[in-house]
Amino acid sequence: MVFQRLIERKRDGGALSAEEWTVTLADFMAGRIPDYQMAALLMAVVWRGLEPEELTALTEAMLASGDHLDFGTWPAPRVDKHSTGGVGDKVSLVLAPLVASCGVAVPMMCGRALGHTGGTVDKLEAIPGFRTDLSRWEVERQVQRIGCALFAQSAAIAPADGRLYALRDVTGTVPSLPLIAASIMSKKLAEHLRGLVLDVKTGSGGLLLELDRELELARTLVAIGESHGCRTVALLTAMDRPLGRACGNALELEEALLALDGQGPDDLMAVTFALGVEVLLIAGVAGDAGEAGRRLHEAITSGRGRAKLGEVIEAQGGNPTLIDDPGSLPQAKVVEIYQARRRGFVERVEPRVIGEAIAAMGGGRRAPGEAIDPSVGFVITIKPGDHVAAGEPIASVFARDQEGARAGIAALDQAIVLGEKHPPAPLISHRVSDRGTEVLAAGMLEDRSGSRAVGR
Amino acid sequence: MVFQRLIERKRDGGALSAEEWTVTLADFMAGRIPDYQMAALLMAVVWRGLEPEELTALTEAMLASGDHLDFGTWPAPRVDKHSTGGVGDKVSLVLAPLVASCGVAVPMMCGRALGHTGGTVDKLEAIPGFRTDLSRWEVERQVQRIGCALFAQSAAIAPADGRLYALRDVTGTVPSLPLIAASIMSKKLAEHLRGLVLDVKTGSGGLLLELDRELELARTLVAIGESHGCRTVALLTAMDRPLGRACGNALELEEALLALDGQGPDDLMAVTFALGVEVLLIAGVAGDAGEAGRRLHEAITSGRGRAKLGEVIEAQGGNPTLIDDPGSLPQAKVVEIYQARRRGFVERVEPRVIGEAIAAMGGGRRAPGEAIDPSVGFVITIKPGDHVAAGEPIASVFARDQEGARAGIAALDQAIVLGEKHPPAPLISHRVSDRGTEVLAAGMLEDRSGSRAVGR
Repeated sequence: MVFQRLIERKRDGGALSAEEWTVTLADFMAGRIPDYQMAALLMAVVWRGLEPEELTALTEAMLASGDHLDFGTWPAPRVDKHSTGGVGDKVSLVLAPLVASCGVAVPMMCGRALGHTGGTVDKLEAIPGFRTDLSRWEVERQVQRIGCALFAQSAAIAPADGRLYALRDVTGTVPSLPLIAASIMSKKLAEHLRGLVLDVKTGSGGLLLELDRELELARTLVAIGESHGCRTVALLTAMDRPLGRACGNALELEEALLALDGQGPDDLMAVTFALGVEVLLIAGVAGDAGEAGRRLHEAITSGRGRAKLGEVIEAQGGNPTLIDDPGSLPQAKVVEIYQARRRGFVERVEPRVIGEAIAAMGGGRRAPGEAIDPSVGFVITIKPGDHVAAGEPIASVFARDQEGARAGIAALDQAIVLGEKHPPAPLISHRVSDRGTEVLAAGMLEDRSGSRAVGR
Repeated sequence: MVFQRLIERKRDGGALSAEEWTVTLADFMAGRIPDYQMAALLMAVVWRGLEPEELTALTEAMLASGDHLDFGTWPAPRVDKHSTGGVGDKVSLVLAPLVASCGVAVPMMCGRALGHTGGTVDKLEAIPGFRTDLSRWEVERQVQRIGCALFAQSAAIAPADGRLYALRDVTGTVPSLPLIAASIMSKKLAEHLRGLVLDVKTGSGGLLLELDRELELARTLVAIGESHGCRTVALLTAMDRPLGRACGNALELEEALLALDGQGPDDLMAVTFALGVEVLLIAGVAGDAGEAGRRLHEAITSGRGRAKLGEVIEAQGGNPTLIDDPGSLPQAKVVEIYQARRRGFVERVEPRVIGEAIAAMGGGRRAPGEAIDPSVGFVITIKPGDHVAAGEPIASVFARDQEGARAGIAALDQAIVLGEKHPPAPLISHRVSDRGTEVLAAGMLEDRSGSRAVGR
């Protein structure tokens, strides 16, 4: 009876009080609010949005619904990085060991593949024996011992987020900026962090499709983090094409190992370094961006980053010799070379098509809990703006069988658009912090927020 | 999986195909679409509305979900009247026997009290022994025998409407123009009618609150009716104050008997005649409005209308002597006179406050299936624009006990606003038919629809 009045108020554009959000979440978790009423409220939120005070209250109620990490008085600077999700985005696998080897503690809660986007948990589980279901106690101990743990969200952390997300997933209420923000931050704020660096993906493979809305999401995430005493910085990076060359769980892990060796593709290295610099600055282990960049570079050339990943793999049940022998990862049964159908410039490599093809080829889930084949995927060696000759090999398909290979080739036919030369979108376009929004790549859009252009 | 895509499409402002609506309703009724997904779709419909083709498809799917009346080749003109719901609105109790006594067959499906509005079924059930749960077969036989049946919606007629309404009622998705229109018309089109006359209530006690939206609702209802070969006319009538003097089930029945005797309050008689004229014209039992008005007048002066109500009461299990002895209706235990608190003009008599007070005093339901006390209610003898003296008796409260009487008096304090003289809103403001919208009362609003003002 009372809850229905809250639905009606939100439907009519009003706001719920902080206490009403707290009670709503508690009642929902206790089964006193049925799913159909919550679904109606969620759709009304997609429609009407949330006031800043509502968003804070909802985030805190979700956070308070579960457990959180607690490092007590341990003084090490703890910083995590989170991406809104992309295709070929293996940054976490490179960045976490790199910054950990520079003295930052990284308790990184990772997600599974979702829709067309990949998930770090699935990539890690391509490693035979690797456990991601660490207990809170295991995470705390491992981070204090080796500076890094890569673990899956458990039911103990922000369980309200898990239940709400499951409902949103089947009721068309996922793409709501405040609901996305509350979901992300309720988990990240449970990690007992000094700071958080966000990679907000833009373009056709991003979450919200429009740059304006991605910017608003970045600002919202930064505002929530800062209001909870968590230093938060967001970079907006291009997801109108896959990041790096490899797309698919084991393939991406292999590319991450290359990157830790300094052999990664340029775009992957650039995004990893840009985010890594922010992590080091927030952690206070580097005084300025130049020093931070040098430290990351040294972590690669010295092999310390790569060794740190080995430590993490060993600590979580995998065989650490993997880092010297990527061939021990699951290998696809069928590999097909894909050649350019004609000459021309690469106009687009559509990440959504690639991501959905990986899922269809067995590398992603159609339903929760489904087993996946980590070996399938793509390696795409061209980028928008490149010129290709007819018949030039520009990609490889990794599949379980001939049928999968045919599906992969059809996906490449659809995803790779050849035509005129267009300047590709800038890789890293904006930086959002508590000091405002900086446009990093000129000419991409009008500055809408009174922010100033800043060279890096 | 597929249904979720439909929710997303509606959320993003798209339309479902006719077939998609048909399958959606069938799957919902078969339990293949859970309530939480339907609730999300309904909220998306409140947000985005429905295209005309969608509305037609939804209405037909709801109609097709159940049984319908069938009068075969019986030639008598069948016309029903439906109101969007008001306070003190006992028009059906007067109009149905009046027009039936003029030769129109009236298979009138009636509703129960809903929110602040009363329901004809509840008013009829104030008559000891009166049965409203007629079978389809009983309705058909009674209408053919005596020209009128007043019956409750059964689960056999448009059951999808019943299930959808129950869900809308608790998810804040009632006030959607197309959902309201589909709900009304799916039931009325099941009556096998030649025509339908609608009373769309406007003002603070109406369904949609804004005149523009009530006009749009009227046009939508007329369009659906006409597209199904059912001649449909709508009058927009004032519900910024109760209609007539009596509000409450038994009290309204008593006032209806007075009206059938020509002793009803002016506003009740005016609305009943205006709607009755439309019924007679659609039925073809009168050639023009003047003749129709005379026939209705004769039905009153001759006592034929009143006698027809007696026949209906007898046919449905009540004691027909009631029409000569209203004292046999349930009587309230406590009656209190309410006096004007000060002198002044009546600015407002808020129907919503009155309707909710009746429910709170035991005359309405807080939950489906709750028993109600038909004796409670109000008789309010003043109207907006009237001048009252301090201490003048202007209303009576009919209650079960002293506590109810106190609640009733408090409600009158809130509902009756004394102050300056304002011209009251016109009683009947617009007429909507397949020929367009006619403004019946000048000066009420700008004509927004290219319609012409027509004197009656």
